[in-house]
Amino acid sequence: MNSFGRIFRISLFGESHGPAVGITIDGCPAGLDISNADFETDLQRRRAGAAGTTPRTEEDIPKFASGVFQNKTTGAPLTILFENNNTRSSDYETLKETPRPGHADFVLHEKFKGFNDYRGGGHSSGRLTVALVAAGVLAKKLLKNISIQAELIEAGGNENIEAAIQAAIETQDSIGGIVACTASGLPIGLGEPFFDSVESSIAHLAFAIPAIKGIEFGSGFNAARMKGSEHNDAIIDARGTTKTNHAGGINGGITNGNDLYFRVAVKPTSSTPQQQQTWNKQTQSVEAFTVKGRHDLCIALRVPVVVEAMTAIALADLLRLHEGAV
Amino acid sequence: MNSFGRIFRISLFGESHGPAVGITIDGCPAGLDISNADFETDLQRRRAGAAGTTPRTEEDIPKFASGVFQNKTTGAPLTILFENNNTRSSDYETLKETPRPGHADFVLHEKFKGFNDYRGGGHSSGRLTVALVAAGVLAKKLLKNISIQAELIEAGGNENIEAAIQAAIETQDSIGGIVACTASGLPIGLGEPFFDSVESSIAHLAFAIPAIKGIEFGSGFNAARMKGSEHNDAIIDARGTTKTNHAGGINGGITNGNDLYFRVAVKPTSSTPQQQQTWNKQTQSVEAFTVKGRHDLCIALRVPVVVEAMTAIALADLLRLHEGAV
Amino acid sequence: MNSFGRIFRISLFGESHGPAVGITIDGCPAGLDISNADFETDLQRRRAGAAGTTPRTEEDIPKFASGVFQNKTTGAPLTILFENNNTRSSDYETLKETPRPGHADFVLHEKFKGFNDYRGGGHSSGRLTVALVAAGVLAKKLLKNISIQAELIEAGGNENIEAAIQAAIETQDSIGGIVACTASGLPIGLGEPFFDSVESSIAHLAFAIPAIKGIEFGSGFNAARMKGSEHNDAIIDARGTTKTNHAGGINGGITNGNDLYFRVAVKPTSSTPQQQQTWNKQTQSVEAFTVKGRHDLCIALRVPVVVEAMTAIALADLLRLHEGAV
Amino acid sequence: MNSFGRIFRISLFGESHGPAVGITIDGCPAGLDISNADFETDLQRRRAGAAGTTPRTEEDIPKFASGVFQNKTTGAPLTILFENNNTRSSDYETLKETPRPGHADFVLHEKFKGFNDYRGGGHSSGRLTVALVAAGVLAKKLLKNISIQAELIEAGGNENIEAAIQAAIETQDSIGGIVACTASGLPIGLGEPFFDSVESSIAHLAFAIPAIKGIEFGSGFNAARMKGSEHNDAIIDARGTTKTNHAGGINGGITNGNDLYFRVAVKPTSSTPQQQQTWNKQTQSVEAFTVKGRHDLCIALRVPVVVEAMTAIALADLLRLHEGAV
Repeated sequence: MNSFGRIFRISLFGESHGPAVGITIDGCPAGLDISNADFETDLQRRRAGAAGTTPRTEEDIPKFASGVFQNKTTGAPLTILFENNNTRSSDYETLKETPRPGHADFVLHEKFKGFNDYRGGGHSSGRLTVALVAAGVLAKKLLKNISIQAELIEAGGNENIEAAIQAAIETQDSIGGIVACTASGLPIGLGEPFFDSVESSIAHLAFAIPAIKGIEFGSGFNAARMKGSEHNDAIIDARGTTKTNHAGGINGGITNGNDLYFRVAVKPTSSTPQQQQTWNKQTQSVEAFTVKGRHDLCIALRVPVVVEAMTAIALADLLRLHEGAV
Repeated sequence: MNSFGRIFRISLFGESHGPAVGITIDGCPAGLDISNADFETDLQRRRAGAAGTTPRTEEDIPKFASGVFQNKTTGAPLTILFENNNTRSSDYETLKETPRPGHADFVLHEKFKGFNDYRGGGHSSGRLTVALVAAGVLAKKLLKNISIQAELIEAGGNENIEAAIQAAIETQDSIGGIVACTASGLPIGLGEPFFDSVESSIAHLAFAIPAIKGIEFGSGFNAARMKGSEHNDAIIDARGTTKTNHAGGINGGITNGNDLYFRVAVKPTSSTPQQQQTWNKQTQSVEAFTVKGRHDLCIALRVPVVVEAMTAIALADLLRLHEGAV
Repeated sequence: MNSFGRIFRISLFGESHGPAVGITIDGCPAGLDISNADFETDLQRRRAGAAGTTPRTEEDIPKFASGVFQNKTTGAPLTILFENNNTRSSDYETLKETPRPGHADFVLHEKFKGFNDYRGGGHSSGRLTVALVAAGVLAKKLLKNISIQAELIEAGGNENIEAAIQAAIETQDSIGGIVACTASGLPIGLGEPFFDSVESSIAHLAFAIPAIKGIEFGSGFNAARMKGSEHNDAIIDARGTTKTNHAGGINGGITNGNDLYFRVAVKPTSSTPQQQQTWNKQTQSVEAFTVKGRHDLCIALRVPVVVEAMTAIALADLLRLHEGAV
Repeated sequence: MNSFGRIFRISLFGESHGPAVGITIDGCPAGLDISNADFETDLQRRRAGAAGTTPRTEEDIPKFASGVFQNKTTGAPLTILFENNNTRSSDYETLKETPRPGHADFVLHEKFKGFNDYRGGGHSSGRLTVALVAAGVLAKKLLKNISIQAELIEAGGNENIEAAIQAAIETQDSIGGIVACTASGLPIGLGEPFFDSVESSIAHLAFAIPAIKGIEFGSGFNAARMKGSEHNDAIIDARGTTKTNHAGGINGGITNGNDLYFRVAVKPTSSTPQQQQTWNKQTQSVEAFTVKGRHDLCIALRVPVVVEAMTAIALADLLRLHEGAV
């Protein structure tokens, strides 16, 4: 199912080279101001165009098919469409014979018995993250006094992002990166023990972002190497402020009022310009292969705003559950 | 909500020092053989008793309140109860004034307005993982020809587990660890693009396990430092076998038929024997504090079978969704 | 799935002749007073014993397996168990060969491939309504200032219930009835257009009660014979009070602040003492058949409190959704 | 939430006078043939134009925004849009002051704090049933060898539909009606005990249709007046064929292989041409009132195909659950 959330609920649809991609947001309260301008900053952060990103650029103008009236949300399901205009589907004809290594071509063909729209990755394309970013804009509106900030802190193993991109362009090989995200101003008490833990909700959505292969909260994998006396965050006042924040703002799956902090690992774009090996279905043998189409050398550059959106969506749902539960 | 799953669906309940902990499994097909003996191995792996684990031991005998008739599943919701017999609630009286650092005491009290059962961590206790392990036994029965194997590969930063435990006992400080999990024999096609990705499902459940603070699939965080040409797994035959497995058996959120592989980070038990600092609600000041109660020095020792259970539960639901979707 | 609700969510389990029947209530806020005495009135209303009801009587003492601490709800999932003590399973041995007409014996055997617990109707038994009534008691606690009242207004086509029961006893044939339910004090705005309409929610739960075969809101089937000018309820003040209540307190699926009113049709108990015809699987022919076991002549007598419970559960969930959505 | 279904899941959106109404269908298998022509018959049956229906006619051409490639379903979420072209919003300006009696104007304004799109009923409009009918077409494709047939059997209390419509036109007052629906060819075993009963699922969706106020399965309300010996359907062969069908093809919430049969009551259109009384918010008094806009005198004429669609959607989800559960 391509839906997520219990009260603030999103349903995602669309294919990279179909007429449009879109998202329906259900459970958005009535009366929120909404205009195209609200979306510009975040959509721009996601957009391609900079060094290291794909030359396919789309205008990305949100069209509200429902749920908006006189520039305010109506309380009814809100559907946002983004038309696909800049597609070059001919680039993808060869993929039917040669599934790209590291890509979902092979599994999508098997899972959907060859009926999937293979052009540009179809429904699995990163193109759909434009709709997720739009839903994130709505979610952020619900998170009053809460700020979420994600940034790329490392690319290709290098903390100097610009140098990393330059090196990738020179070697013509794609690279990955690490995105860190902080949410400040959260109330104490979001999340539930076990299945609705904050980590479960955020990780669920983070792994819905194409190319994410790891997530760690607070000290994360480093915590596994610490002693209890080092890792525990001493509580220093009645509001629960902690001296350190090894927990990343979460205890027992529940926000503790300190900054929520996590990192995600973004793998290198599978569509590297380098020659690779893959199975050729027609010749029934392993053959050399070079990817066509227009791709990002470092997709991680465009991921932070998507991570922010997903975090906002997860928190908006948990916040409404929490308020509904009082 | 303490439920997870769409077709194979579990609902968890109980408190550490209440009458019982339990789980209801809905969507379990009729006619599966079931006996107490089926649960012994996994429950034993989770049980305390070894060096580095808590001296609180429970008999852990599953009681089937529903869904089992003549030693077979009936197809109706299956409820398993584990009674709590070995409780020492008096150990927890002081926690009302001094929330343990690194523990959920503080947030639970805030979230539930002081009405939570604070004894032994209440509903948030690791005690409830006994019910998750039991559900995992059922889930594994549905995963015919699929084997899942999780093990502790590192404790306290040391790959020699025994030495790490010995050191923790000597220094009397709790330690964490890293658990690796492999699932073999999976069909191609489990999982969906975006919100029902295999990574989303497994991460959702993995972070429901107390003390887990990170998860990475395949090369995980290392992938962020690799080049595309290194990371991509070359497909070498018509069944989709790959030469390497940096993807951990998942492309685009969907199983590719190779081994599913991931690692989770387990933080050190917050209940370390070391003296710590925390806020004392009565004196309204930060004070020195030592945890009472019976706790694990290295809870990571008992986590692998829980990780296996959660993996089995996630895969059982995805498998049934996949079969239902054909 | 035997679950219902989005925020106030119930999961039902158990078989008529198994160890227990029970229910888990998730999304119940912390701090509600709770004691066995709270359940007595409603459980007593459901209990058998009066003329026209089964001689199988159970003590029906609720056992709180979780979610209650110091006589208050904790905010964690609340599980209530009712043990089955008064079972006579031998009565049901013949049912394997001769499925009772009008009963679920045949379909349950087919659906669950013969693995269902056939004793006393197994998981499909009216016995499970004891747990629904208990959940209704909790739900009513959430519906402050809202009163729900259901009563049997007709039995066997007779508005004199007592006379109808007497006639049924004399003719030794089971009868049905009609239950009317009114909820007063509801806020304006519960329910949503289309799938979460108040009628959808209540009907969903009403048809979960065994033996219910029809439901109508307000004027219901009579409305189909009225003219618009007759049926429309004139609004006569700023709070939305209407002169008549043909709508049963619901417009467009949403409560309008007037009394919610609906009726349900209860079919006659299928286990009539009269001789009937059914297929005998062993002889492979239609044969005369008389039901054994202890049954109600007029199950409708025991239905009103179950209808109240279901209404309370539906409204509690809609109320919390409504509050969460503000 | 405007979603329904667990495996075959629909999400509805749009307003009567917004840019479009639409529906996303998730869980539709890949490889189904699909073309505009498939929708024509059912859309035509729902369309206005005949005597007794509104003069607002729309072309109703389905636009596939996603999930269709080369005239086949892809297995990804399938979104169908219907543009709104023939709107006359000026008709609705007065409704802000004078909520129509029998209509949702008043409650929608209260629930959504005045931010709802009030034009033409907004999101609550019968206009959205065009999208439900489209989803029904897809659902019917999944129900191989199952036929569903709904028809208007009574209008304004008259079994002669044509005469009833003629009388309504002459008296210029709206009328209701009764729709009967039969589904043949169903397998034994769809539905579950209690909350996922066939009656619960179908009633849930039936009451999502605007103007439906009652539903009864099999003998329905008449069953409440029958004796058990009359009502019980004798089983007469090994496949479960019954001599009579008072149960409407459902025992214990589960299909028994005989024809599924139910009736729904459609209230008269609230927008009658007759003068009525309602509260005027501006003058703060009850005033005479006549509805503007273009409306149906007998909306029941257009309901049967919507009932069919809803039945198909409910059964498609239950069928897939049943198959997934084996």
